[in-house]
Amino acid sequence: VAGEHLAAASPRLLLINAGYANAGTGEQGLRDARHSCQALAELTGLTAAEVLPFSTGVIGERLPLDRLLGALPDALKSLSPGGWEAAARAIMTTDTRPKIRSVRTRLSGSSVTVTGMAKGAGMICPDMATMLAFVTTDARIDRRLLQACLDEAVAESFNAISVDGDTSTNDACVLSATGLAANPEICVSTDESYGRLREALVGVCAGLAEDIVRDGEGATRLLRIRVSGGRDRAECRTVAYTVAHSPLVKTALFAGDPNWGRFLAAVGRAGLAELDVGRVSIHLDDVCVVQAGCRAPGYREEDGQRAMAGADITLRIELGRGSADSTLLTCDLSHDYVTINAEYRT
Amino acid sequence: VAGEHLAAASPRLLLINAGYANAGTGEQGLRDARHSCQALAELTGLTAAEVLPFSTGVIGERLPLDRLLGALPDALKSLSPGGWEAAARAIMTTDTRPKIRSVRTRLSGSSVTVTGMAKGAGMICPDMATMLAFVTTDARIDRRLLQACLDEAVAESFNAISVDGDTSTNDACVLSATGLAANPEICVSTDESYGRLREALVGVCAGLAEDIVRDGEGATRLLRIRVSGGRDRAECRTVAYTVAHSPLVKTALFAGDPNWGRFLAAVGRAGLAELDVGRVSIHLDDVCVVQAGCRAPGYREEDGQRAMAGADITLRIELGRGSADSTLLTCDLSHDYVTINAEYRT
Repeated sequence: VAGEHLAAASPRLLLINAGYANAGTGEQGLRDARHSCQALAELTGLTAAEVLPFSTGVIGERLPLDRLLGALPDALKSLSPGGWEAAARAIMTTDTRPKIRSVRTRLSGSSVTVTGMAKGAGMICPDMATMLAFVTTDARIDRRLLQACLDEAVAESFNAISVDGDTSTNDACVLSATGLAANPEICVSTDESYGRLREALVGVCAGLAEDIVRDGEGATRLLRIRVSGGRDRAECRTVAYTVAHSPLVKTALFAGDPNWGRFLAAVGRAGLAELDVGRVSIHLDDVCVVQAGCRAPGYREEDGQRAMAGADITLRIELGRGSADSTLLTCDLSHDYVTINAEYRT
Repeated sequence: VAGEHLAAASPRLLLINAGYANAGTGEQGLRDARHSCQALAELTGLTAAEVLPFSTGVIGERLPLDRLLGALPDALKSLSPGGWEAAARAIMTTDTRPKIRSVRTRLSGSSVTVTGMAKGAGMICPDMATMLAFVTTDARIDRRLLQACLDEAVAESFNAISVDGDTSTNDACVLSATGLAANPEICVSTDESYGRLREALVGVCAGLAEDIVRDGEGATRLLRIRVSGGRDRAECRTVAYTVAHSPLVKTALFAGDPNWGRFLAAVGRAGLAELDVGRVSIHLDDVCVVQAGCRAPGYREEDGQRAMAGADITLRIELGRGSADSTLLTCDLSHDYVTINAEYRT
């Protein structure tokens, strides 16, 4: 429905509900989404196509239309330019805190703001699901350039994180530009202002992405996996995801256990053609744990334990076969993850 | 080393240790494996090539050769035809119980036995790792036919289970035939005896595979995933593995929560080309929870809960686009899984 509406008109309002994903609901679900947009359009003098619907929550249950439609008048009354925190709070599902990031920059002498909010908190795999992010800016910029800018920012942020390796049905990242700032419209990507806006957008998206991982379901530690020395970026990502999705790595991270054998084993099973394990080295923060594919000479367990004791850990994996790299953020697999997902519906 | 020895001679002894995987140990690890085989060979009057080495346990630590070699004389003294249980107990790592299966059959009037033991218990993905299984039979059978028979049995058993979707460094399934039975040697696969032996072997392997999943790390429930109506067997397996590896499915299973939306979402994200979700139906045991891609008409939550309350649950997924099928066994993701893997080295 959001796709139809985007094709038909310029969006003016985003209608977001949490609690019900409105997925696995078939034709009835589509009717419910159209019905809610229509109701909001009638209250605001817009057309239904100017409203974009977003849902997140339990899959397979119908939207509770009565409650949703009944809440619209109050929601409209409480709209305000400073309402970001209330909105960010309202879209939370298993998130424990609202996620908002804002960056101000100057484009050709005019002040411009990029602000965004997002919700996680589980099932954050490649391709975002089940994440929602809403970013807006007052910068004046050509529509296609804005999309290009968003694509670049998303690749470096929301598409470079993983919580549990699972993917769900509902995801979206929406960037809207009001054009209310005073900067001369950005029309080409070589414009210095484009670079500055892009930087601001990356700042907001990367910040939100990190917030999502840090607030991942049950997360107690953040792991920044940096894979370097690959033949190309794609194989670096493959290794990073294989490490990030390994339950053994994630439980070792939860335990603060510098179990480097599990990291090395995950690198090995990533399936890279002709990988020479004898050239692989691994660092935990600044501690070299693996060198030439084996326990590093002089590595002491207590140094590894010290590195793993922090809440933010960087795992550097050097493949020794090229110059490409890729970075991914993930978190641990804890008891709370199991509790949250075992009790989600009860 | 086991590969070299197999190529050089007929194996007479299997030397198996638990606690140290002897992986991620480089050249030193290879030397240690050769050294242990040589030591056992000297004690028994064999050549080192007649000994096959197997290891399971922590990755990256050197084999404790002193302890291993020191234990060999006692191990040899306690060898006995009835020693299966002691051996199955000795190869356990995080297993909570030994796993032995035995089937007796008659081939051309002669009694023949197939007996096997295995250890799990985590990281049981496709391709077995980190599992060891040792099966033996006294049947007389051509060597190549024996290998074919094992390949078929493994495909239907050890390669159709998953505990946590992770894969580790050490796995093996060894089938040895002593040729001590009185049956006429089986030389062609059309021999009726081949079919009977194959059936016995499948019985042992499938039994051990089920034992492994049932004793999966932290497992409280067994889920039998049967995917049917696929275009080919490969896509049925893809769907089955996607469902089996979903942390959301596994935690719902732990909770006994008939959260059919998660099952359906996992089917959707398996990535089959042109899948029409509107033709998918899902049963939990005999309860139809999804029909035509939506909540089944007449489905009552309490019926789903009853199905999920058991320790053995069958999840049937019908794709409605062909006649191929595939079955996979898996287990849930519980608090104990996290505890076991977080504390493995401590």
